[in-house]
Amino acid sequence: MWLYDKKLEFPVNIRRKDLKMAKYIISQLGGPEGELAAALRYLHQRYTMPTDEGKALLTDIGTEELAHVEMIATMVYQLTRGATPEELKTADLATYYTDHGDGVYPVNASGVPLTAAYFSVTGDPIADLTEDLAAEQKARTVYEHLMTLTDDPDILAPLSFLRQREVIHYHRFLEYLNKIQSMKDQFKRAYLFFI
Amino acid sequence: MWLYDKKLEFPVNIRRKDLKMAKYIISQLGGPEGELAAALRYLHQRYTMPTDEGKALLTDIGTEELAHVEMIATMVYQLTRGATPEELKTADLATYYTDHGDGVYPVNASGVPLTAAYFSVTGDPIADLTEDLAAEQKARTVYEHLMTLTDDPDILAPLSFLRQREVIHYHRFLEYLNKIQSMKDQFKRAYLFFI
Amino acid sequence: MWLYDKKLEFPVNIRRKDLKMAKYIISQLGGPEGELAAALRYLHQRYTMPTDEGKALLTDIGTEELAHVEMIATMVYQLTRGATPEELKTADLATYYTDHGDGVYPVNASGVPLTAAYFSVTGDPIADLTEDLAAEQKARTVYEHLMTLTDDPDILAPLSFLRQREVIHYHRFLEYLNKIQSMKDQFKRAYLFFI
Amino acid sequence: MWLYDKKLEFPVNIRRKDLKMAKYIISQLGGPEGELAAALRYLHQRYTMPTDEGKALLTDIGTEELAHVEMIATMVYQLTRGATPEELKTADLATYYTDHGDGVYPVNASGVPLTAAYFSVTGDPIADLTEDLAAEQKARTVYEHLMTLTDDPDILAPLSFLRQREVIHYHRFLEYLNKIQSMKDQFKRAYLFFI
Amino acid sequence: MWLYDKKLEFPVNIRRKDLKMAKYIISQLGGPEGELAAALRYLHQRYTMPTDEGKALLTDIGTEELAHVEMIATMVYQLTRGATPEELKTADLATYYTDHGDGVYPVNASGVPLTAAYFSVTGDPIADLTEDLAAEQKARTVYEHLMTLTDDPDILAPLSFLRQREVIHYHRFLEYLNKIQSMKDQFKRAYLFFI
Amino acid sequence: MWLYDKKLEFPVNIRRKDLKMAKYIISQLGGPEGELAAALRYLHQRYTMPTDEGKALLTDIGTEELAHVEMIATMVYQLTRGATPEELKTADLATYYTDHGDGVYPVNASGVPLTAAYFSVTGDPIADLTEDLAAEQKARTVYEHLMTLTDDPDILAPLSFLRQREVIHYHRFLEYLNKIQSMKDQFKRAYLFFI
Repeated sequence: MWLYDKKLEFPVNIRRKDLKMAKYIISQLGGPEGELAAALRYLHQRYTMPTDEGKALLTDIGTEELAHVEMIATMVYQLTRGATPEELKTADLATYYTDHGDGVYPVNASGVPLTAAYFSVTGDPIADLTEDLAAEQKARTVYEHLMTLTDDPDILAPLSFLRQREVIHYHRFLEYLNKIQSMKDQFKRAYLFFI
Repeated sequence: MWLYDKKLEFPVNIRRKDLKMAKYIISQLGGPEGELAAALRYLHQRYTMPTDEGKALLTDIGTEELAHVEMIATMVYQLTRGATPEELKTADLATYYTDHGDGVYPVNASGVPLTAAYFSVTGDPIADLTEDLAAEQKARTVYEHLMTLTDDPDILAPLSFLRQREVIHYHRFLEYLNKIQSMKDQFKRAYLFFI
Repeated sequence: MWLYDKKLEFPVNIRRKDLKMAKYIISQLGGPEGELAAALRYLHQRYTMPTDEGKALLTDIGTEELAHVEMIATMVYQLTRGATPEELKTADLATYYTDHGDGVYPVNASGVPLTAAYFSVTGDPIADLTEDLAAEQKARTVYEHLMTLTDDPDILAPLSFLRQREVIHYHRFLEYLNKIQSMKDQFKRAYLFFI
Repeated sequence: MWLYDKKLEFPVNIRRKDLKMAKYIISQLGGPEGELAAALRYLHQRYTMPTDEGKALLTDIGTEELAHVEMIATMVYQLTRGATPEELKTADLATYYTDHGDGVYPVNASGVPLTAAYFSVTGDPIADLTEDLAAEQKARTVYEHLMTLTDDPDILAPLSFLRQREVIHYHRFLEYLNKIQSMKDQFKRAYLFFI
Repeated sequence: MWLYDKKLEFPVNIRRKDLKMAKYIISQLGGPEGELAAALRYLHQRYTMPTDEGKALLTDIGTEELAHVEMIATMVYQLTRGATPEELKTADLATYYTDHGDGVYPVNASGVPLTAAYFSVTGDPIADLTEDLAAEQKARTVYEHLMTLTDDPDILAPLSFLRQREVIHYHRFLEYLNKIQSMKDQFKRAYLFFI
Repeated sequence: MWLYDKKLEFPVNIRRKDLKMAKYIISQLGGPEGELAAALRYLHQRYTMPTDEGKALLTDIGTEELAHVEMIATMVYQLTRGATPEELKTADLATYYTDHGDGVYPVNASGVPLTAAYFSVTGDPIADLTEDLAAEQKARTVYEHLMTLTDDPDILAPLSFLRQREVIHYHRFLEYLNKIQSMKDQFKRAYLFFI
């Protein structure tokens, strides 16, 4: 179970409203490479990791991704706070406003709701960890796209932090994947065919 | 952000494998009235609650629903542990096994992956809280359906606990909804039209 | 079965083309809180209402929601009639036009097609009616969002009428829900656990 | 708008519970070639039919398809009435029961919820009517599949009636399509390119 | 199996960047009436065509539709090559860019990913071929919509070629459908009920 | 463009009908880790590979995956050929039969239609190739699951061949990924941030 600690992992204090950036950044909430899909991926995959270290690793990173979900949601909320209907129409965000008002709802940048089809759980630790490497690389890429779309340092600081965390997660997953590949004889019964 | 505490909110110790029950119970993981949809609903809706008490209420219940996700995932995992391919075919669970092995993946009982279309965030606290009342009632109903499908006390105990928590959440949401309806004059600017 | 009566429940006569408003209003056709999802919700839920009065109530409101579907479709059609390609591109409606021309197709404001995942049928009348209360509150909210996006009285009049109908439906559902909650002993067999 | 007439278009009186047939027949409610998708297809396409006769034709057939939705829902309800949990598990219908109890919810035979992606509205009457021909042929095919899965005359009679209605609708759509193809010079402005 | 021949079926050489047109044209890649849905429809339906000629026809047209997928993907790629972030934001294509950068991904014009729900395989050749007629008519319509949205001859030439191919496919499907309808006595066993 | 060569990449000659295996194997057609999702992933990602070698590699493997789609479709078709309605009901394949008869339609083992949400195109070659590594590992896993569900050598031979091809593709993708990571200075402009 989880305990809530009322603070963000990294501070989010955006002073300038930017409806267009809200629209793009929301993809890291509800999009295919977003933080919520990542959290759900790891927190479900952990059950079939072959060692306690693996279960702990996925629990740990999955829990951190929940904190990233909260950071992104806070960014979206701050970026849109107090927008007028006219501003929403100009920024083409009135489509989102129609259904969600100033609420925070997990869609991608085009407005498509999150689906679990974005991630896989196969029960095979090699396959799942390789998917996790890909997830981190893809999330990194989306952060890089977002960072080319703004010059606002209040936005860039948390995006940069989050991007850096993906790189660190990538290396942690890679290290564990290498470790279990070298131990594969021990898991032969469960995972017959290692590449 | 969240801190992980390595224990379940309520103990899950299922001694007897039951693949059919796993197939039904998984709906409370990835189904329309399941715990994951509930957690995501509350943790996203909290941003537009009109008082700190409301934000705290939704954070608190949302966080508890994450713990319920973990309980259900544990139940599914324990109910299927060590199943042979022949058993999976007989219980018609080999469809799930094909894609997910013995992993835990959020689908409903028919195998449809979770979608955020199962819940709403409207930015209006009255509407969102009424949806929360419905969510708790619907989750209660699904637990009652599940409880008619088994006699195993190891399964019934956590299901009964989870059902009871939904009832308690319902009353907590109702109490807060009544409170903000009586304060609605204070929120007039943001929420023009109260029913 | 239904008989078609060739008139609208409330007149729709929009004189001024407004492509942006068409794009937002279409969410009440094919969006999560829209009239079509509402009609389908009630017309399916009615089979398991515990009394004839309940079945009649859901049939009646479900049938009226079909009339609202028709009003919204007419609004969308009138708001876009005769638009030129250049106007469509400027209003960012050429995305819709590409696939649907000047046809009327049930999507939300972001262009996501209607899915039955937007509503639930649980077979439990308490749960289903609580969902119906939520549906009416959420639809009311979306109408209020839409009404902030325009000053055109030709658009505001039917929106205001439709919003008001949601409020009336809400109270009719609430009245019936209160009635069956007080009768719950009679339904004990079918619905074991009342909150 | 529509008026509800409290009778079915064709009588449905199924005396023998048959959970497996309920599971298959529900596809004509919520499946890709089902009655609900058909009703929604025609009732939305009607706005861009080029003549009053065409608008009336699609309204008329769309309204009849709503009556077919009601017949199929009634069949599903009668086929499952009074099933015990054990019977539901044996017939592999407890997956559906978990989420929907004895309620009627629009899914296909595999449990996938209805989506508007099953039908198209293009704004071009030639394209839309050709899709309507296909819809009727596909619905006919599914009725034929269903009729090979049972010998119960109580089930076969309404299925046979519904299949026959699809054939009649096919011919009505074909007749109108031929008529507007011969008039295509009159519509040149709107529909530049006829095949 | 297929062999790749490194050339396009028809040349695509677009000299002028046009982000808005890319956004619309991508619907013929991943949209409901697009080339990819068409290719998948025919290449799956071919297995149940009643004669070798039919199987060959669907294989042939299905293979050509794959070549059209490649043409559309090339158009999208050329139309967006070298766009700056500022240009992407102005053309409202930064939503797509956020998730996909300058990659080519199958969505419709509103950004909804391709789903197999866009096409049907019923196993009945009459039904499947009627759906194929509809598919060609609907694809033709979308090409006509696209051709009204641009004056650029570099874009119009391939669109016009692709539209023309749909017309030819329509006539090839119609010819074969007429042929098998006249032979229907031979297929009586498999297809009991011809309209 | 592609040329069709009327032969399978590897022979498929299944002599014994096996409806249950058909139901599981179809996941490699329309499921999340299936051959069709793989083919579409590579054939779309190829546009943004940084060298001609990369574009050729993805075209080549993507084209081979199309041949695998054809092998799987043939397996499904042969495994179900001539099934009676009673056999379909016993094997719980009558749900599929209701909608698709003996046709071949891309769903996963639970009957969920293919969606492009199963794969990503990010425009970043490092991210896309890491996803490709994951795709090959996940497909391998599903083949291993399928191989535990049958003893029929007619089924095992093509499954084993296909599994082996995934391993080979994995190594080809890895080799190319290593190559471009070492060349990353040359691509600095386009891909600013390499991990």
